[in-house]
This record gives sequence, structure tokens and C-alpha cells, in this order.
Amino acid sequence: MKKFVNSVDSVLAESLDGFAAAHADIVTLGAERKFVRRSQPNRAKIALVSGGGSGHEPLHAGFVGKGMLDAACPGQIFTSPTPDQIVEAATAVGGEPGVLFIVKNYAGDRMNFEMAAEVFEGRAASIVTNDDVAVDKSTYSEGRRGVAGTLVVEKIVGAAAEKGLDLQGCVDLANAVNARTRSIGVALTSCTVPAAGTPTFSLGDNEMEMGVGIHGEPGRRRVTLTNADDIAEQMVGAIMSDFESRVSGPALLLVNGFGGTPSLELYLMYNAAARLLRKQGIAVSRSLVGPYVTSLDMAGCSITVTMLDDKLAALWDDPVHTAALRW
Amino acid sequence: MKKFVNSVDSVLAESLDGFAAAHADIVTLGAERKFVRRSQPNRAKIALVSGGGSGHEPLHAGFVGKGMLDAACPGQIFTSPTPDQIVEAATAVGGEPGVLFIVKNYAGDRMNFEMAAEVFEGRAASIVTNDDVAVDKSTYSEGRRGVAGTLVVEKIVGAAAEKGLDLQGCVDLANAVNARTRSIGVALTSCTVPAAGTPTFSLGDNEMEMGVGIHGEPGRRRVTLTNADDIAEQMVGAIMSDFESRVSGPALLLVNGFGGTPSLELYLMYNAAARLLRKQGIAVSRSLVGPYVTSLDMAGCSITVTMLDDKLAALWDDPVHTAALRW
Repeated sequence: MKKFVNSVDSVLAESLDGFAAAHADIVTLGAERKFVRRSQPNRAKIALVSGGGSGHEPLHAGFVGKGMLDAACPGQIFTSPTPDQIVEAATAVGGEPGVLFIVKNYAGDRMNFEMAAEVFEGRAASIVTNDDVAVDKSTYSEGRRGVAGTLVVEKIVGAAAEKGLDLQGCVDLANAVNARTRSIGVALTSCTVPAAGTPTFSLGDNEMEMGVGIHGEPGRRRVTLTNADDIAEQMVGAIMSDFESRVSGPALLLVNGFGGTPSLELYLMYNAAARLLRKQGIAVSRSLVGPYVTSLDMAGCSITVTMLDDKLAALWDDPVHTAALRW
Repeated sequence: MKKFVNSVDSVLAESLDGFAAAHADIVTLGAERKFVRRSQPNRAKIALVSGGGSGHEPLHAGFVGKGMLDAACPGQIFTSPTPDQIVEAATAVGGEPGVLFIVKNYAGDRMNFEMAAEVFEGRAASIVTNDDVAVDKSTYSEGRRGVAGTLVVEKIVGAAAEKGLDLQGCVDLANAVNARTRSIGVALTSCTVPAAGTPTFSLGDNEMEMGVGIHGEPGRRRVTLTNADDIAEQMVGAIMSDFESRVSGPALLLVNGFGGTPSLELYLMYNAAARLLRKQGIAVSRSLVGPYVTSLDMAGCSITVTMLDDKLAALWDDPVHTAALRW
């Protein structure tokens, strides 16, 4: 395993310490590193709390800050955060208006966020993201997985919360954005979990995993490696055939790197995906390209499409000030 | 070679098209993709023009925009841009006050920027970055190589140019920042140039290349892979022993990923490097962590330290609006 680590047991702690130190103007690390919260919380609005297994950085801690999340709970690598982490985070940032938990659809995350919501004494509601069209059931989930589309939900609902939207409004908006969002990923190589020390799965030199999950879990099928345009066509095709026929856009197009793929290739994939959407009559009005929802060091990418309307586009454009997204 | 490509001949063109489309609010692609320039040029100030071989994205095109570069010339992968690219970029963005060429110290870049400066009809000056302490002479350079510290020069001088600093002032400031900046890189794996199709160099499972260049060229020595703290100590040690003894900081600490290393590991390295600087009495007052000056898909990172003063810190903090840096 060729990684920058000291001990596999301390990877997360040391990385969180570095993250909190590098972004001390934006975030504060909670006691025992149970959560990352905004340095300047605003309890007069709905607090957005997310979290999940680590190894997907910058998701979620990199999205904590004004205009997006109020706190994020990092579980161990590819492991759900515990209910007490979530309760402490919600307690640290939640105020009178309430807390919205944003949960990716994995069995462990759902169970632990549900347990936390029961224990948490403030007002709270939860929404679940499940934007991955690859599989309807997977190693870690009943139903579709929540993947990079979660970023879009967090950004748009974060902006609305900042403007004073109430709890039920945030729930409805989050569900609406999730319903307008579809993603699919592809892996060219496996990731390597530090504690395991060896690749999670193996792929031949001429193979790729279409529909891969963000933990390296299996996707739709192991297929022959092909060129970027063909890969983009399979991915955009899967997304567009999943939307009901009435969608028209304009669209937000997110091309997300899994950690081992550099931006030279991601922009090439963006170019291919945007052209395919245009061919289907879908204009791309908002774009994001980069490693935002990673799978450790996996080479590969995902494509996410969110169908916008004027209101959603304006919320996307609203200012955001986090470690990983800022405008 | 497992990459998202269609044809090795069109990688750069397709990636630039995607980049320009995704960031159409910030940048415009010049004719024949010879340069990337600001969509809204400001000819009333010094125009900063940089460039170099591609494969280091987001350097330099990702740093084009208000507060940083006015134009960037992307050469083919790991190949200098041609003089005519540079002349056309300077002509497109340069005004009465003049053009500053920011050149990384590689023989090809220096030659082509010098030829361009001779042909360019407007007022112009050049500065050369050479922040890499690893080697005093390399495959592609006489003297030290210009690496990730170039980003720091571009940001700080970009801010000063925005405020109306004149040409000689920009030259002096760029040289001062370069003189206060030191970098060193380490590779855990090789990059793979698409046109070659195979890794540029080979490293054993238990080896790393200390002092690697951003084209995968050799560094100081091939050494045994060790833990993150030891690696950081070698790197910070090389940087600090190279500074004259009177430096005191506060410092800007940039931990840069080479393309294949995810942010989980980069923040862990940041944590180690910041601790080592503190031990030497150097406070870190500004931080940047991420893949900013890459070497295609190479796993590895570089550490850059710039000794700041109040003026430089304020220029670093000034607003910047580019594809890759925004605050």
C-alpha cells in the first residue's frame, strides 16, 4: 500500500486535525473529533447536519460553512458515524428552528441517523439521498445508494436554510432536489482501504466497473475498458433513461473524480457528457468538475445531473463559504 | 493505460474544451486553443501571462481570472507552449501598462517565453520561478525547477496587479515572493503520459522518489517508503535548511497533491508538516491543501513554504475568482 500514513489506526484523526487546522477560519473540530462544525454557528436558522463514512473527502466536512452544512460527522473509513456523534453534532449547532439530517442511503447510515434522531432532544427531521441509478440494491443498501448528488442537495438546501426556510420547507426542498438528481459512477481501478492494505477489488488491465459504488462495491457490470466518449455515453444514457420523459433542464452537470483521476481527464469527461446532454436537448447551465465525493484513491469518476428550475439555479448560485466549495 | 481518453492526440484539446465550457463565466479559449484568457480582460492594468506544459492542471489555466492570471498558454503534455501561443496570449490581454510573463524554470519554457518576448510588440518583462530545492540541475533545467511555488507568485502578484502595481513593481514583487518560497516533492508512483501509454519511471512497492519533478523526472534519491511523519520531516527539513537562517515566518504552507493522491492523505501530510514548522518556531498563518500543480495521475505530494510578511499576507487574502482558486 503506497499511501501517506503513519498508523492505519490514526489516519482519520490526523487527517481531521490537519483539515481543522488548515481551515480554522471556517470550521472547528468537536471534542474527540466526533464532528466538524462551523466556527461561527447560526442557531437562528435550520441547522443542516450530515455525515457518513470517511474516505469520501471533501464530502462532508469540506462542505461545512456558511451557505451549506452546519456540521458533519465523520465515521471511520467507509463506516457510518455512531449515533452519539450525530447527537453531539446536532446539539452543538441546532437551535429553536430545528435540525435537518441529510443521510445517504446506506443501511448503517440510516440506522445510526434514525437512532440519533430519536435520542436528540431538539426538533429534527431527516431526508435520505438515493441518486445512484446504477443498482436498485447493493452491498450496503436497500434501494438506491446516495452518492455525489448529495452534494447538490446540501448546497441548494444550505442556501435555502441560510435564507430562513423552515424545517418542513427544507425537507420538501431536499426531497425535490434529490428527485431531480441522478448519478452513476465508473471505476478504472480499485481503492485501497488503509486498514486492509490491499485493493478492495481487482480489475483486469482492460476492465472497468460500470456503476461502481463509492466504497468500491460492485456496480452494474464489469465491462471492457473503452474510450471516454463510449464511457460517457453509457453513463449519460443510464441517467437520462432513468429520468421520466418530461424532464427538460436546464441541467447542473457535476463530473466528480473518485480520488485517483486528475482534472485533465475529468474535464475531458465533462466535455463528452455535456455534448451528449446537448444532443438530447438538455442545456447545461451550471457545472462543477473535480474530486468532491471520492473513494479514497480510486481512479474513476461519476456523472451527476440535476434538472434545475430558476429557483434551484438561484439557490445553487447563492454564496457558499466552505473548505471545498466557495463562491 | 487506464485513463479517460478518446485519442492520445486529442486529450488536451478535449480537456480544454471541457474546461472552457465548464467555466465560461470566467475564461474564454483563444483561437486554435492557443491560450485561455479572462472572459473580461482589463487592459488598464499589468497583464499576467503564464503557461507551460499541460498535465499540471489546474496550473495554469485554472488560475486565470480576476485577481490572478490574465492568460495562460497550455503546451502539449509536458511540453512548452510555442512562442506564437505566448505572443497571441499577450496580444489578447496586454494593454498600455504592459505584460508580465511568469515562467517556470525549464529550458524549453525559458527559451520559448524569451522568443515570444522578443517578438511581442508591447511592453513586457519576464520573471522566472525556481522554488524546487530538490536538485540544482535536472533533466529539463539548468538551475532549480519552478514547481508549486509558482502558484503563490501568481496569486500574490495577481492581487498586486489588480491594485494597479506597475511593471517594474510586479517584477520586483514576483522575484521577492519567489525568493521567499521553497518547495520539494515526493512520488509514491509514476505518472503515465497518455502518448507513451506506460509509466514514465518505475518504483518498487517499497520505494519512493524524494525530490521528484513535476514531470516525473528524477529527484534527489530513490529511498525506502516510510511513514508520513518521516516523509514530512525529510521534506520540511530540506526546505528549512535551504532558507537562510534569518527567516522567521509567519508562513504560507501549501500541501499540493500530484493528481493520484486524495485529500484524506494530503491533510494528514499538512498536519505533519505544520507540526514540524511549529517545532522550528515557524507559525503557519495561511494554508492551501489540494491538487493544484499536478503531474497527471502521479501519486505523491509536494510541500511549499512561503515566508510571508503583512503585505504579502494581505495580497494572498485579496479576492480571487478563478476556476481553481476562489475566495
